[in-house]
Amino acid sequence: MVRTLYDLAADPELRFSPYCWRARLALAHKDLPVETVPWRFTDTDAIAFSGQGLVPVLVDEGTTVTDSWSIALYLEDRYPDRPSLFGGAGAVAPTRFVNAWADTVLNPGIVRLIAADIVRILHDHDKAYFRQTREARFGQPLEELCADRDSRLPAFRQTLEPLRALLGAQSWLGGAEPTYADFIVLGSFQWARCASPFELLAADDPVRAWRERLLDRCEIARDARRAA
Amino acid sequence: MVRTLYDLAADPELRFSPYCWRARLALAHKDLPVETVPWRFTDTDAIAFSGQGLVPVLVDEGTTVTDSWSIALYLEDRYPDRPSLFGGAGAVAPTRFVNAWADTVLNPGIVRLIAADIVRILHDHDKAYFRQTREARFGQPLEELCADRDSRLPAFRQTLEPLRALLGAQSWLGGAEPTYADFIVLGSFQWARCASPFELLAADDPVRAWRERLLDRCEIARDARRAA
Repeated sequence: MVRTLYDLAADPELRFSPYCWRARLALAHKDLPVETVPWRFTDTDAIAFSGQGLVPVLVDEGTTVTDSWSIALYLEDRYPDRPSLFGGAGAVAPTRFVNAWADTVLNPGIVRLIAADIVRILHDHDKAYFRQTREARFGQPLEELCADRDSRLPAFRQTLEPLRALLGAQSWLGGAEPTYADFIVLGSFQWARCASPFELLAADDPVRAWRERLLDRCEIARDARRAA
Repeated sequence: MVRTLYDLAADPELRFSPYCWRARLALAHKDLPVETVPWRFTDTDAIAFSGQGLVPVLVDEGTTVTDSWSIALYLEDRYPDRPSLFGGAGAVAPTRFVNAWADTVLNPGIVRLIAADIVRILHDHDKAYFRQTREARFGQPLEELCADRDSRLPAFRQTLEPLRALLGAQSWLGGAEPTYADFIVLGSFQWARCASPFELLAADDPVRAWRERLLDRCEIARDARRAA
């Protein structure tokens, strides 16, 4: 295989990183086959060649690219004749705001709801790493953090108002068709969907309708292994 | 004048609506001269011809356009040979997410900090309208709402994290140069800047540095009349 993606895994078939999902959805949109290598948080040696310690790491015909945003830019630049991820050069800059919002609002909101589920699915070595780093970040045991998640769900759902306002005006973040802006946000919901049974979205939420419509177009996400 | 913009005003020279500032910044970016007509919340008759009751209302060579987003799209389409507002057709859809974020997060956050200052600058007829509608929305007197604004400022500043993350990666929301995405957000800060002496941004906040850099490029905003 000429193309490899190091992809965060719980058991080898259960892939859940929002950032790795961004990369996988981008590769699928470009119709670029890829071999995904299951990777654990503590497998730092396996990706030492990339010069850093985080996934996703893409190795594409000998070129190593790290960081989901850089991977999207690389794919758009390297494979211009395949379906566009951004819908034009001018779309890259404002799409980065979607990326920034997902990184600073959406993902921090989600992890506070599902961290206790994530630790349950991880391999033993990773359990210790994840618990230690996240409990230091949140200042409490993960189970305690997530114990009152039902009561915190309305506040989380409130943070999705920009998405609802957008989806009241257009079908996709990308406009008439999904673009990488949609894949960024789907990556976050896919993270929750694969790692946790906890449903983030109310049945009548337009964000949920958007998620389901997008999953119907993204088979690798729709059909992905989910935690029991 | 072939071009008129109905623009929310306190005293006639003090213009403060975030949505009208979006339109004025868009017109200035396109280098399109415009006569602005000072308008008050209660002047519904003056814009009845537009079929609705909100400003901005643009009348451009006989064409009436309402709603700041629609005005931006209209100007981009009608004046394609002038500097682009979006930087390409593909940029419109993701820029709308910036617009949705400003409408649902940034502006609701700002009004809760400066509503008591806004009511002070309004004309008497508007004072009653603004106080009644906003106190119904917030469930308390505006002065009471704003009394503890210093203690709520950190939470407001926290909501700007997506902007900070973006500005850590690129100079402008528009990328290498400001676009309408920048003007949307500047419109919100200009609203606060014109209507209130309350400084929203810490001296060392990268968002403040961005605002000042953008004001240096947008003379109509930089030099606008501000409340004493």
